[in-house]
Amino acid sequence: MAGNTFGTLFRITTFGESHGTALGVTIDGCPAGIPLDEAVVQKELDRRRPGAHAAASDGTPDLRGGRLNPAMTSRKEDDSCEILSGVFEGKTTGTPIAIVVRNTNQKSEDYGDIAFKYRPGHADYPFRAKYGVRDYRGGGRSSGRETIGRVAAGAIAKAVLEREGIAVRAWTSEAVGIPCETFDEGAIEQNAMRACDGAAADKMLARIIELKAAGDSGGGIISCRISGLPAGLGEPVFDKLDALLARAVLSVGAIKGIEFGAGFAAARMTGSEHNDAMRSGTATAGGAEPGAPLSGKPDFLTNHAGGILGGLSTGADVVFRAAVKPVSSISIQQQTIDTDGRDCDIEVRGRHDVCLCPRIVPVIEAMAALTVLDLLLQQKALR
Amino acid sequence: MAGNTFGTLFRITTFGESHGTALGVTIDGCPAGIPLDEAVVQKELDRRRPGAHAAASDGTPDLRGGRLNPAMTSRKEDDSCEILSGVFEGKTTGTPIAIVVRNTNQKSEDYGDIAFKYRPGHADYPFRAKYGVRDYRGGGRSSGRETIGRVAAGAIAKAVLEREGIAVRAWTSEAVGIPCETFDEGAIEQNAMRACDGAAADKMLARIIELKAAGDSGGGIISCRISGLPAGLGEPVFDKLDALLARAVLSVGAIKGIEFGAGFAAARMTGSEHNDAMRSGTATAGGAEPGAPLSGKPDFLTNHAGGILGGLSTGADVVFRAAVKPVSSISIQQQTIDTDGRDCDIEVRGRHDVCLCPRIVPVIEAMAALTVLDLLLQQKALR
Amino acid sequence: MAGNTFGTLFRITTFGESHGTALGVTIDGCPAGIPLDEAVVQKELDRRRPGAHAAASDGTPDLRGGRLNPAMTSRKEDDSCEILSGVFEGKTTGTPIAIVVRNTNQKSEDYGDIAFKYRPGHADYPFRAKYGVRDYRGGGRSSGRETIGRVAAGAIAKAVLEREGIAVRAWTSEAVGIPCETFDEGAIEQNAMRACDGAAADKMLARIIELKAAGDSGGGIISCRISGLPAGLGEPVFDKLDALLARAVLSVGAIKGIEFGAGFAAARMTGSEHNDAMRSGTATAGGAEPGAPLSGKPDFLTNHAGGILGGLSTGADVVFRAAVKPVSSISIQQQTIDTDGRDCDIEVRGRHDVCLCPRIVPVIEAMAALTVLDLLLQQKALR
Amino acid sequence: MAGNTFGTLFRITTFGESHGTALGVTIDGCPAGIPLDEAVVQKELDRRRPGAHAAASDGTPDLRGGRLNPAMTSRKEDDSCEILSGVFEGKTTGTPIAIVVRNTNQKSEDYGDIAFKYRPGHADYPFRAKYGVRDYRGGGRSSGRETIGRVAAGAIAKAVLEREGIAVRAWTSEAVGIPCETFDEGAIEQNAMRACDGAAADKMLARIIELKAAGDSGGGIISCRISGLPAGLGEPVFDKLDALLARAVLSVGAIKGIEFGAGFAAARMTGSEHNDAMRSGTATAGGAEPGAPLSGKPDFLTNHAGGILGGLSTGADVVFRAAVKPVSSISIQQQTIDTDGRDCDIEVRGRHDVCLCPRIVPVIEAMAALTVLDLLLQQKALR
Repeated sequence: MAGNTFGTLFRITTFGESHGTALGVTIDGCPAGIPLDEAVVQKELDRRRPGAHAAASDGTPDLRGGRLNPAMTSRKEDDSCEILSGVFEGKTTGTPIAIVVRNTNQKSEDYGDIAFKYRPGHADYPFRAKYGVRDYRGGGRSSGRETIGRVAAGAIAKAVLEREGIAVRAWTSEAVGIPCETFDEGAIEQNAMRACDGAAADKMLARIIELKAAGDSGGGIISCRISGLPAGLGEPVFDKLDALLARAVLSVGAIKGIEFGAGFAAARMTGSEHNDAMRSGTATAGGAEPGAPLSGKPDFLTNHAGGILGGLSTGADVVFRAAVKPVSSISIQQQTIDTDGRDCDIEVRGRHDVCLCPRIVPVIEAMAALTVLDLLLQQKALR
Repeated sequence: MAGNTFGTLFRITTFGESHGTALGVTIDGCPAGIPLDEAVVQKELDRRRPGAHAAASDGTPDLRGGRLNPAMTSRKEDDSCEILSGVFEGKTTGTPIAIVVRNTNQKSEDYGDIAFKYRPGHADYPFRAKYGVRDYRGGGRSSGRETIGRVAAGAIAKAVLEREGIAVRAWTSEAVGIPCETFDEGAIEQNAMRACDGAAADKMLARIIELKAAGDSGGGIISCRISGLPAGLGEPVFDKLDALLARAVLSVGAIKGIEFGAGFAAARMTGSEHNDAMRSGTATAGGAEPGAPLSGKPDFLTNHAGGILGGLSTGADVVFRAAVKPVSSISIQQQTIDTDGRDCDIEVRGRHDVCLCPRIVPVIEAMAALTVLDLLLQQKALR
Repeated sequence: MAGNTFGTLFRITTFGESHGTALGVTIDGCPAGIPLDEAVVQKELDRRRPGAHAAASDGTPDLRGGRLNPAMTSRKEDDSCEILSGVFEGKTTGTPIAIVVRNTNQKSEDYGDIAFKYRPGHADYPFRAKYGVRDYRGGGRSSGRETIGRVAAGAIAKAVLEREGIAVRAWTSEAVGIPCETFDEGAIEQNAMRACDGAAADKMLARIIELKAAGDSGGGIISCRISGLPAGLGEPVFDKLDALLARAVLSVGAIKGIEFGAGFAAARMTGSEHNDAMRSGTATAGGAEPGAPLSGKPDFLTNHAGGILGGLSTGADVVFRAAVKPVSSISIQQQTIDTDGRDCDIEVRGRHDVCLCPRIVPVIEAMAALTVLDLLLQQKALR
Repeated sequence: MAGNTFGTLFRITTFGESHGTALGVTIDGCPAGIPLDEAVVQKELDRRRPGAHAAASDGTPDLRGGRLNPAMTSRKEDDSCEILSGVFEGKTTGTPIAIVVRNTNQKSEDYGDIAFKYRPGHADYPFRAKYGVRDYRGGGRSSGRETIGRVAAGAIAKAVLEREGIAVRAWTSEAVGIPCETFDEGAIEQNAMRACDGAAADKMLARIIELKAAGDSGGGIISCRISGLPAGLGEPVFDKLDALLARAVLSVGAIKGIEFGAGFAAARMTGSEHNDAMRSGTATAGGAEPGAPLSGKPDFLTNHAGGILGGLSTGADVVFRAAVKPVSSISIQQQTIDTDGRDCDIEVRGRHDVCLCPRIVPVIEAMAALTVLDLLLQQKALR
């Protein structure tokens, strides 16, 4: 199982299974001199923690437990991180940063039944076909807990990007069939769905309570905006900014699609509708020689391109949307086969999320931040 | 401009600008003993050639010139390839294969005006911001001609995959606002749009003639199916099969989105609707120990997952759809700025495609084949 | 500080500083189904442990403490490893294996003086020039403790190679000016120098006691033999077996040179002296088509090539020698400058090794095993 | 045959066989704006060209043919290069640079006999064992002609380094058993051996004429010095400057060993002899924060370390020596086996070099330059 490494210059390797001893990440290539302690990482880990949630729409912020978030599993996990290396006197030294989160509440007995049956929608069957063996305890490496390492590394990437004036922000723009109708950035971390529309969030939560009662689940759409990027980020052929973001985002378990700017709607537009016209802007960037000031930087009158042309950032906000499939673990009876190849039925018991959107938001932010930072470092190399 | 290399074990590096001396590709990691000559590569290059086209819907096949394909530029290019290395006595030797296609018909004078203005929808501005210099002759490296190297390498990847029983097939499923309504596989290479519905293709061509008259352009959607994959292909975390396919496909210039299986529609489904039920199949694959036979292989009753679970192939067909934006070069007057940062207008003259779909079909096939072959070789390594 | 990752398919990332919280390694790409527990790793870690040693030449084996090894620092460290992931029911699952060793006996106060002076022979000055900051506690990342992660990963690589019939063996062939005069493989782990000649080992130890009394140190030469390799391992251009072994071995802190087979002596030989003649052997290997049996495998009458021709293994033993520089930390007064650039003197106090040879032996074995296993997996991919 | 790619940010892929259509290289990651034309590349290619040579010791420079260099094959090859991409208006654009050299004088009939016999000292047997097929025409990919791509890319790397004040210089310090006794830098390109001692060069040439008459061959030692490096280049663990140089240099066909600074002699020194003392220097470099000025830069009173400590450049000259084995192709009768595994004799006919030293000098310079430039770009990324 190769493929646990992400990035070229800011390079992370994640490890750990849902019911093993610990999960974590090693980060190679972090610049020296960045202020860092466990709190920076813990803050982001808490956003993806099972049982954690933003305040409900009544405005009560409650980030470490408290009132139940109906979208999420009732499994309680502390997910406290420890930084093992790479930090000295409160700053990164440039050496690899290893971060570990120990598993404390696995309850693997919940999963006994699935040792012999392939759960529909899960990777059980292809895992077995690939490796011959399978760690059936809660999905093992294919569990959502695998994202702990991503979020921990993403927290550091975000901290580095912030120093460059770059911000990555994601939110739920649709869930369980209910779209947001307004965009209120301040609402995002104030409701349990991380939706950009508090009223829609209430409807989503009501629908989630119904789905939970029926033993069913739902999906949704995450939107993400990266602001403050210089123009020219990305590499023009295989390492296009959108190509690398797509790989980063599709590498998150439940994501089934991504679109940039107008996305699939662009397929139905004409060139004259789709092209983003430019007018003279006020700021300057880039240069006649690499590094020297360009005499002008455009304002784009629209952003159908999603801030990317020819795989390079244009200086406008990069915007994309990602489709989240419904949670695969449902307690409704489903048809499957067992490990001997015989037909059987399965009901997946245990404590599961109903809709992944609010917990995937920080994971998408992490993957976007990791992608952008890696390209930013590459950009510096060739200046 | 790093990022011209794709793949880990079957690794290609493409080179060349639209108006330079030549374009091509170097392939490192091709297995030895594969029959190969220029004809294998030329056949695929002819499918993406400007001015080339499948037969019109009247059934006249005409792959090397002949009747004008209204979707495509009238620029004539021969695009003959030469294999410089890696083949001995008609077979690959395992050494790098270099393939070159010389540019013969650049007509760079057509592009003079754009040396000082940034074309909307093109990468002109971010290229200048990134490098300080810009090869303005027909887009340079950001031209669609860059895909020649991809298609040449993809032809070889397809030849290797064919020996493993794996086939990659793409087609236009929607263009210029007109969707296909039937799926007739035999029709694909028999109409100028490479559409899976000959009647829809006729409507698309009629709409293209209108757009061309108006100096405008259109987009579309390409579908792709990979059949014959063993279960378990892909790596479970960052190198998920869908993540790597997404990166591969989004690295093609005009693509703005991708979705697998139910894709964005999955966001609105419940788990019970979306999960693909399994019943006992007849064939066997994989094994209790890596390589040994599994006692059963499922038939999936639906394929909402698009043949991928947890980033691994399930043994069902892998299916995805990609959004193609409208061609950016239009002769309608547009607002832009010049290289001194002043507002100006631009009309992009020259010979351009109206809709890229038919020419992108072989490029998507190439990128999918390159991705799958690379993972297949990695899979062998860890068996 | 990138560059903490080694390998392409069997890929390790090490982390940790000498006086930080912990050191360790993450291994990505380990095949599934390999028996593994902490004991497999601990056995190799104990071989490199400070204060640990093989039995003295009196024949008393004493691998976990006990009688003092005069070549080594008197610093006591337990160096107990913990496997955090990647193992289930006693076997590897194919997921990343994270191994951690906590620092327990740092005594960082010993190093206070060197915070402001650059130690001759150490990386203090270039580290400061590179990063601006420096973790001066015992060398930080440039400490010999960094090799813990290498040895832990190497233990697993050796276990995988053993299943393929491949053995990696290193030993001290010269130390503190005293060469071994016989080759007695059984003696290696029975003397405190890991020398292949027990009588020479006694002389080395006597010389080491003199050097220690004088506050000085010494170097030596490590030899290594890799047996059981199939012919054809390595890649013919940049990834030659000897090139990758050289990089692996020179990446170990104190190594200043490497030579394969006749090595530098080959520079003075004629072709007729140096070429290894071949005679018909008995076994078969390789094949007319990749994978099929070759009709004959040569016996090489000499091995001046060191088992490698054109960067590929020949089937003969791979043999190389590596030069170990004298330990840089000496308590003799030396000229240096301080961090303000002023001339000063320094005596490096603390508990240090006198000669690194016995402790570097397992590190060289680890690096050789990691290199060979990675190439073996690549070889399988292209079969 | 993977492994034809070298470098991370300045990344080259070479291709081509000795008797195929062409050889060459693709360079990905070259900074934009570097002046470049064929002459820059041709100059270096001419230095490694068969039949080419520096002036004989009589002082007549003759770089394109003319008087025979007795050390070299009499095969005449023009080796004219063509740049296919990546250059626009005389400067690099940042896009991949492809360079091709066509084979014009293969005379493959000379090699007929070796199709069925494995030449001692050559990679014939392991190649066959690895791939099942073998391109027996002059060694195919394992021929010395493979270095054309390296030298072409190295010419560009040197041009980039020169702008940073970094110079790479190699020379023959010993050949066919005769060591240089003086170091006269000006002599190097003025004698046919590229030796740093013109009188020694005359003796070497006399010895070479004897060896040639006997059908035999000889080896030698190449020295290399890299000057002008900033302190801190290299990465501290696996990507140590010496480790990467060792891999680069050992990847050249005939090299059997490498040593840095005191090298193998260091194994016999004490720490007090070996450590390079420091005194306050005059210049400043590096900084208290990355990029800021350091208050002092040391002068090293000796350079036993070869300019590298802990894998990082110290600011002193980097110096290393590489052992060149005798040419394997000799016309003296040797014992071998044929492709059916039967004992036989072989005399290798054809036009061969007697001693590779003068032709390997530019190859070593190229590999050193490629290594250093790649690390320099990585260094910039993390500043």
